[in-house]
Amino acid sequence: MRVQAKTIPSALSALVGHSVDSIDTPTLVVDLDAANRNMQRMAEFTARRGLRLRPHGKMHKSAMFARLQLQAGAIGLCTQTVGEAEALAAGGINDVFISNEIVSPSKLHRVAALAHQLKARGGQLALAVDSAEGVARLAQAMHLTNAAIDVFVEVDIGQGRCGVKPRQPAVDLVKQVSEHAPSLRYAGLHAYHGGAQHLRSPEERHTAMARAAELVQATCELLRTEGLEPPLVTGAGTGTFMEEAASGVWNEIQPGSFLFMDADYLQNQRGAGQIQFESALFVKSQIISASARHVVCDAGHKSHAIDSGLPLVWSPTGQPQWTFANGGDEHGILHAVKPGGPLPSLGDTVWLIPGHCDPTVNLHDYIVVVHGGLLDGKVQAIVPVDARGV
Amino acid sequence: MRVQAKTIPSALSALVGHSVDSIDTPTLVVDLDAANRNMQRMAEFTARRGLRLRPHGKMHKSAMFARLQLQAGAIGLCTQTVGEAEALAAGGINDVFISNEIVSPSKLHRVAALAHQLKARGGQLALAVDSAEGVARLAQAMHLTNAAIDVFVEVDIGQGRCGVKPRQPAVDLVKQVSEHAPSLRYAGLHAYHGGAQHLRSPEERHTAMARAAELVQATCELLRTEGLEPPLVTGAGTGTFMEEAASGVWNEIQPGSFLFMDADYLQNQRGAGQIQFESALFVKSQIISASARHVVCDAGHKSHAIDSGLPLVWSPTGQPQWTFANGGDEHGILHAVKPGGPLPSLGDTVWLIPGHCDPTVNLHDYIVVVHGGLLDGKVQAIVPVDARGV
Repeated sequence: MRVQAKTIPSALSALVGHSVDSIDTPTLVVDLDAANRNMQRMAEFTARRGLRLRPHGKMHKSAMFARLQLQAGAIGLCTQTVGEAEALAAGGINDVFISNEIVSPSKLHRVAALAHQLKARGGQLALAVDSAEGVARLAQAMHLTNAAIDVFVEVDIGQGRCGVKPRQPAVDLVKQVSEHAPSLRYAGLHAYHGGAQHLRSPEERHTAMARAAELVQATCELLRTEGLEPPLVTGAGTGTFMEEAASGVWNEIQPGSFLFMDADYLQNQRGAGQIQFESALFVKSQIISASARHVVCDAGHKSHAIDSGLPLVWSPTGQPQWTFANGGDEHGILHAVKPGGPLPSLGDTVWLIPGHCDPTVNLHDYIVVVHGGLLDGKVQAIVPVDARGV
Repeated sequence: MRVQAKTIPSALSALVGHSVDSIDTPTLVVDLDAANRNMQRMAEFTARRGLRLRPHGKMHKSAMFARLQLQAGAIGLCTQTVGEAEALAAGGINDVFISNEIVSPSKLHRVAALAHQLKARGGQLALAVDSAEGVARLAQAMHLTNAAIDVFVEVDIGQGRCGVKPRQPAVDLVKQVSEHAPSLRYAGLHAYHGGAQHLRSPEERHTAMARAAELVQATCELLRTEGLEPPLVTGAGTGTFMEEAASGVWNEIQPGSFLFMDADYLQNQRGAGQIQFESALFVKSQIISASARHVVCDAGHKSHAIDSGLPLVWSPTGQPQWTFANGGDEHGILHAVKPGGPLPSLGDTVWLIPGHCDPTVNLHDYIVVVHGGLLDGKVQAIVPVDARGV
């Protein structure tokens, strides 16, 4: 209900076709070539494994990138909020799973209205639940429309955040969902382990996901004995999706970050055969103050999220020259990696690789999309972050 | 140039006059009564001391709160970016100091255009500089208009971010500014110590600011001997402004956070006679998932900035009942302060006091302003965050 189509400011529109040099700072920039290659790698992997790919839209919050993902083979999108689902639906996405719990009556009315709207367009909406109270509230809201909604029971497989406990508690909740058919359609289990995505070593991630897979497997077996085999088991993120795929327990995966990547994911050690994704998300910044020992750029917490660490300073050689230190909301402080090494000059451009892609995108109303690389490329498009802040 | 007037969505407008219960979550809420009391305390203090009060608009990024501050006695506003200055000017603020360095030609053209516009309205624009190159670039941009701009030489008094060194380097830069009269008007020194604001003990803050005052004083004396006495010395923040006032060196102060306050400033120990400000900024959140050991609310990094720590959970008794743990971008995890103590129930409202006000406001397009308190109050207004993200 808060979603409004964003008008791209004329100064930004005027950038299209111009060189990257013409992009003012601080600005969020996506290297479209790198993002497309990342998408291709993921789509090929899921096609080869026969897995459904439902990328998480909470990362890009943008209908344009969602459409790009559908064209490359995704079967739908995840979102984390009703506002994100509304924004993607307004941008032409017909199959959306809100992979989160919603319990407020006003938001559940928006969920019901959106389910109705997507059904009328031949699409569908899904929602996660983790409590009997949540099921009852959803059923009440859906009662007011003649639409149906797909319902996934969220199972806590190790993250310790939302989700019902595996095995019998999950089975009990599935039964409660089933009692509200046909307006609530039991669609399966939502089993995501956020805590495992950034475990640094492949062994740690494998151990966490092997345990998670056992819990999901045991729950599925109990459900089968009750004639409630889950139509789908959905979950996984960029850090672990190959584990979920290898387990044979999940048949749909929801990674988001792989499309843009970030400094936090770059720090995960890759295991043998693990797909490598490229940095596609950058903050273009400029040096605004220079002293003998450090220089200051115009990008701080307002330009990149720091919940998962500070940005890296991109280097065209791959060999980092400068480190980024916290300079507050509007500033970053750069030092040379080698003590006494050269620093950028006043007015120079520096490209930052944000620590965490999702909340960084959420700081910006628009993404400037570049084709042809950061050094010689041209602006291809201005993409509104449709679901920023909703 | 990117500033657009924000249309308030009808669902938000419809809230005005309704009770706080009708505010959906997660939403940024300001207790207007508390904010007004905070403003009154600051205005009385500066009036008593004969100090000019120029609150920092980077905190609220909102023309409505800027106008409220002018009505209460402020003489103008600070901003940290050109976009913020443009947004406040568009909202009727005529006297703006961009307390930061700007060196890109495109942004300096916007600075020159804004200086021209404010002059035509009987107001004025000011900018900080900390390099000869910055002065030359500003002079070149101003050359294209017939307007003048006030220029403050920023002096590094201990923060180690932007700013020229005190004493002779500052004097040299003042001379360079003066050479570009009348289009650059030497307005004085900008001397702000961001690093001192959150030193926890009054003694630490006093020591840092006593040293800073010495550096400013020494620079002023050198300037006087050159016939370049600064018309104004401006600086200070919510953590130290009483130190700057007591020093007799500053004649204008720029605090921002005092209006809304945040959990970080609440952790500063107050010294004898130090003014107490109240929490006026909250994120209204709702419990969406509950287990025996913890509950989960719908506010995470997307709702509040965590660069200065996690939010506190507000309690009407002043006695905190629950602690907030990081649950990611869209979730917070609450535990009872007393092990085994009662937790809120599914659907309950919790009010969070964000860790840091400025970047929290920057996450939201609108602030819901409440009169009459968080428990029984009514929505008084919906205030656009005019300069969000710019």
